[in-house]
Amino acid sequence: MLKIICSKASLQKSINISLRAVPSKTTMNILECVLVDASSNKIRFITNDMELGIETIVEGNIVEKGIVALDAKLFSEIIRKLPDDDVSISVDDRYTTQITCGKANFTIPGRSREDFVYLPILEKDDVLTISQFTLREMIRQTIFSIAVNESNRLMTGELFEIKDNILRLVSLDGHRISIRRMPLKRDYKDHKVILPGKTLNEIMKILVGDVDESVNIYFTENHILFETEDTMIVSRLIDGDYFRIDQMISNDYETHIRVNRRVFLECMDRSTLFAREGEKRPIILSTLENQLLLHIDSSLGSMNEEFDIEKEGKDITIGFNPRFLMDALKVIDEDEVDIYLVNSKSPCFIRDFEEKYVYLILPININNPS
Amino acid sequence: MLKIICSKASLQKSINISLRAVPSKTTMNILECVLVDASSNKIRFITNDMELGIETIVEGNIVEKGIVALDAKLFSEIIRKLPDDDVSISVDDRYTTQITCGKANFTIPGRSREDFVYLPILEKDDVLTISQFTLREMIRQTIFSIAVNESNRLMTGELFEIKDNILRLVSLDGHRISIRRMPLKRDYKDHKVILPGKTLNEIMKILVGDVDESVNIYFTENHILFETEDTMIVSRLIDGDYFRIDQMISNDYETHIRVNRRVFLECMDRSTLFAREGEKRPIILSTLENQLLLHIDSSLGSMNEEFDIEKEGKDITIGFNPRFLMDALKVIDEDEVDIYLVNSKSPCFIRDFEEKYVYLILPININNPS
Repeated sequence: MLKIICSKASLQKSINISLRAVPSKTTMNILECVLVDASSNKIRFITNDMELGIETIVEGNIVEKGIVALDAKLFSEIIRKLPDDDVSISVDDRYTTQITCGKANFTIPGRSREDFVYLPILEKDDVLTISQFTLREMIRQTIFSIAVNESNRLMTGELFEIKDNILRLVSLDGHRISIRRMPLKRDYKDHKVILPGKTLNEIMKILVGDVDESVNIYFTENHILFETEDTMIVSRLIDGDYFRIDQMISNDYETHIRVNRRVFLECMDRSTLFAREGEKRPIILSTLENQLLLHIDSSLGSMNEEFDIEKEGKDITIGFNPRFLMDALKVIDEDEVDIYLVNSKSPCFIRDFEEKYVYLILPININNPS
Repeated sequence: MLKIICSKASLQKSINISLRAVPSKTTMNILECVLVDASSNKIRFITNDMELGIETIVEGNIVEKGIVALDAKLFSEIIRKLPDDDVSISVDDRYTTQITCGKANFTIPGRSREDFVYLPILEKDDVLTISQFTLREMIRQTIFSIAVNESNRLMTGELFEIKDNILRLVSLDGHRISIRRMPLKRDYKDHKVILPGKTLNEIMKILVGDVDESVNIYFTENHILFETEDTMIVSRLIDGDYFRIDQMISNDYETHIRVNRRVFLECMDRSTLFAREGEKRPIILSTLENQLLLHIDSSLGSMNEEFDIEKEGKDITIGFNPRFLMDALKVIDEDEVDIYLVNSKSPCFIRDFEEKYVYLILPININNPS
């Protein structure tokens, strides 16, 4: 039966990727396993939680071909605690597995591949190739506004859309919308799918490559496949029609302000002291000439602050959840940001000129103090 | 009323020290306050959770003398989120407190000092002066074996003893005893007190000075006082007679082994994978010539390992909780450690020649596999 020899480092790298598709709680024991597959000329670790599946190639030598399913968490903890040396993994015909490194020897039970659920085999036509860095950034810059609550399943995912050779990621939670757009370098077929938030979170952590390293993305009716040199990630899609975003976006405004992002962000951060869970007090923004006055009031105390801005249009007073402003300000790269406002009851739009990003945030109704 | 100006950095340093005597849960609201006392020519922050009290001097200028009690956590969070600049704190006659830094202004309610419980005033005779580094190290090297369970209050503290000009710290939890000894440089009166574990944990975090910085320690009947240049820490003592440690310590042995600390520690760490909560499986150590054979067996799997040791005396097989061995091995500085054993039912002693440290660990009864 199976015998392989790999360095501790390569085992650790691969099992850390595999763990991302191991559920923390499940009634199906086999889902907690990693399938160590050395049945061909490559060593593969395969994990599958039925929504997300990962197959990754492990560097190492196959002494004897074979397959075994091992408890993924125990296996990963053993690997982690081994000395930094070559590790031999060998399995007998009852799937009992020996893991040996230096003078340390572990014996753990293994299982046959019989119950293991392999990844679905997908048709690979029409590939989208982008850099891992870009994909990771676009996810990071939108993922914060998916809904945590499961009551509307569509909101727990993100729209992943190719249209007119522009890739667009969109998330919304009923209080705000986050949009990132990127023009693609060649012609692509249009696609419009909804990815689960969990998948996107794991993708961010697995695809750590930089601008030079690319990922191939394939679409099928029910799945999406992300493929790098050594790893395949397959995710189910969320079924349904996503919200009609474009109807919610408007370019009209009465007031346009330009603020220093860092100054605004730090002020919002301070104001959250008075916007704790339960009380949900708004931060009230008022423009006055070229000053932005900020005020928040709660049972704990109050805060006032002001700073210089550039302003165009009429003065306005409007209230927001400071955390929503912070979330958007945190993921914008530019030093100065443009905010467009209509009135105290209409959403604000934070967007750049080319609309690489658009963040819509609904205001909190305030008793207008003016 | 009170008005002071301090840098953000000095406020932050001082409030972080003060917070260590602010209880996380209390029915007495005033205990959650820090008393900002600028009634004399120094600014002091005072906190007191009735077991531990801290008074620390804050660098800054007094513009107007006064005293106010502020919610310590809110005050510390405000300070933390301020820009790195001078901070002005001013209080009106209703104790409303303005905290201003740059363009940011906070208003929070304050309280009079009326209900505040000041630190007890202690007689300062007979000082013990040692380096902050030494005290911190001696605590770190013993604190892990106090009992967490409150059922025996004496075990939740440490013996802090001066006898024949030797300072000794002792902790025990029913399974093990940890002892650190340090000869003192001049003649001291004997003292024998029991300090609460919480106090010792906070002392470790507050006294961050190195070998050159000293701490003065004073004893009274019910309290101990630690005093540095800018901070006073007063703790209640635990009432009672500590266990008679010296009767439990023996220098007899049948087997003496010398092991490489790091090798032993890493092996113990690996074995904890099979000694999880609930199962509490022992690691079984067997000497064979100049080899130490280690074995642990559980429902999850098993581990074997062996490494070279120096040995004197007869061979032995004995089982331990690997975590207890790890805890002691982690805090020993030496590369090689000496372990003394009698038989499989008697405690092992890990100690150096001068007995600067002694760690006693009780074995776990095993069905002797030999």
